[in-house]
Amino acid sequence: MPELRKDPVVGRWVIISTERSRRPGHFTPEPGGQASGFSPFAEGREDMTPPEVYAVRPEGRGKDSPGWSVRVVPNKFPALEIEGSLDRRGEGLYDKMNGVGAHEVVIETPDPAVQLADLPPEQIQQVLIAWRERMRDLKKDNRLRYALVFKNHGASAGASLEHSHSQIIATPIVPRMVQEELDGARRYFELKERPVFSDIIDQETGEAQGRRVVARTGRFIALAPFAPRFPFETWILPLARRAAYHTIEDDGELFELAGLLKDTLMRLNAALDSPPYNLLLHTAPLGEPENPYYHWHIEIMPKLTRVAGFEIGSGFYINPTPPEDAARYLRDVAARA
Amino acid sequence: MPELRKDPVVGRWVIISTERSRRPGHFTPEPGGQASGFSPFAEGREDMTPPEVYAVRPEGRGKDSPGWSVRVVPNKFPALEIEGSLDRRGEGLYDKMNGVGAHEVVIETPDPAVQLADLPPEQIQQVLIAWRERMRDLKKDNRLRYALVFKNHGASAGASLEHSHSQIIATPIVPRMVQEELDGARRYFELKERPVFSDIIDQETGEAQGRRVVARTGRFIALAPFAPRFPFETWILPLARRAAYHTIEDDGELFELAGLLKDTLMRLNAALDSPPYNLLLHTAPLGEPENPYYHWHIEIMPKLTRVAGFEIGSGFYINPTPPEDAARYLRDVAARA
Repeated sequence: MPELRKDPVVGRWVIISTERSRRPGHFTPEPGGQASGFSPFAEGREDMTPPEVYAVRPEGRGKDSPGWSVRVVPNKFPALEIEGSLDRRGEGLYDKMNGVGAHEVVIETPDPAVQLADLPPEQIQQVLIAWRERMRDLKKDNRLRYALVFKNHGASAGASLEHSHSQIIATPIVPRMVQEELDGARRYFELKERPVFSDIIDQETGEAQGRRVVARTGRFIALAPFAPRFPFETWILPLARRAAYHTIEDDGELFELAGLLKDTLMRLNAALDSPPYNLLLHTAPLGEPENPYYHWHIEIMPKLTRVAGFEIGSGFYINPTPPEDAARYLRDVAARA
Repeated sequence: MPELRKDPVVGRWVIISTERSRRPGHFTPEPGGQASGFSPFAEGREDMTPPEVYAVRPEGRGKDSPGWSVRVVPNKFPALEIEGSLDRRGEGLYDKMNGVGAHEVVIETPDPAVQLADLPPEQIQQVLIAWRERMRDLKKDNRLRYALVFKNHGASAGASLEHSHSQIIATPIVPRMVQEELDGARRYFELKERPVFSDIIDQETGEAQGRRVVARTGRFIALAPFAPRFPFETWILPLARRAAYHTIEDDGELFELAGLLKDTLMRLNAALDSPPYNLLLHTAPLGEPENPYYHWHIEIMPKLTRVAGFEIGSGFYINPTPPEDAARYLRDVAARA
């Protein structure tokens, strides 16, 4: 059973993943190139994954059979285990609990050769719906407080398989970085009685501004944040405040989001020669979906530079590309069709 | 002039480094192998660096001449600039200031082919003294609140030159991660009236324990922390509490530390086939060197796994090697001479 352990100084939880335990000699050097071409996620290989927990396929077709367009399966090598109780306990001054949680893979297309940015908007919409549906289902498990959706694209961004996929890790604690955003947004709201992300959107779209705006639709905006950690870091936010992604009812809204996500990824591909990237969905905790101060949002971080000692040791990032420059390049580039 | 910018939600400062500004096409793919063999830091090439700010060399020899054993120079491509005022200002709801600070390179040996772990303890002691002396000097500049010493070893840990060196970045703010440690240690002290790192050391060295201890000397201990973010993450702590590294008066203490640092690095080299690593020195802020709750310490993080989307997006790390296993391997391995 994996363990969740808490650092006694800063309160940071880590997952000590015994199922994935690695000893000296079992750490391969970082791969320089792409991962292997063989895909266990391809259509027709449904028996190579654990049984699916969600799929989009025509009616009448059986579970774990071909014909699907999006498929969600438990991770075969999960960081956390879904069975068991949390069993919070101490070890002297330390705190730990069982590594209970869900770790799922969202297979974004049956075709192993197509990447997310290249899928039609209708297919990307299905991926966005799958994220929402899995969150709604995971919410029923009251051991789980948070579901983090993320995507590693490209070997140097941490993807071990080339087949386009995202992942969901649901945890019994709210991740530190999300909690910091929630706390910061709440403090701002207490001070100003306005949601901070709304003020950001107002400033970015206001008169004489727009310097950090990449693209927008009627309900969403893609922008380079004022203080980005990474070059070409890009956020996608809903213009109207909503704390939790999984409370979106209108699938048309997700179609619009799919279009802007595709447009943004294509701009990054065109400007940066199809870079590896990490994509994250930040949203309110599963059990506290409503609050007046937070906006769910997507963060996209192209992997262009290495995170080195200074960043790891300080939490302080050096970014060599001003966001005003990044946004201008992304606005001006012809998004590759 | 670089800019320091603050994220309005979480309060995280970033350095927008205009001097190093990079546009699309200027991001080279991550190098797979080692950096170039040519060293501008080698003895006899003193004119290839900015003029030195510190050096250890026999008396009578001139500044920036050969004959030195350790030499500290300003970074030729600094992330921050030493000249100028902070000029704190707003931009709508955002906060920023000029990117004032120091960025120095500690050249640890005149020989471009020898790495830190392979230097004799007397030479490593000179490096540790250089860190202290630079901190003491930087402390005089009251614009600077913190000096972070770090070392990137190996290309995949972020080193751009093979020649053994560490770096110092001094900033007008206390880095987020250090502030979190200071705050956590202060809260623990308020609750328990004992320093948290002392309690950690007591528990790790106490009866029936020692499972996470790697090595120790009379005044220092190397251990695998209870909740490490990375496989084989190792900390070196002074047994007696001292908040600020730069207040160490006894050079003999630094000789003892040099011996334990060498021993620890040699154990990591032997167990993990000379891995790339990041080394960080966490210490109290320059202007507040004394407090009853903090321990300065060294953190060493071998670079064995990639930090991917989940970690970046959550601040929540998945570590595949339990620290008890890591410490056992490091205790048992014959440190390579």
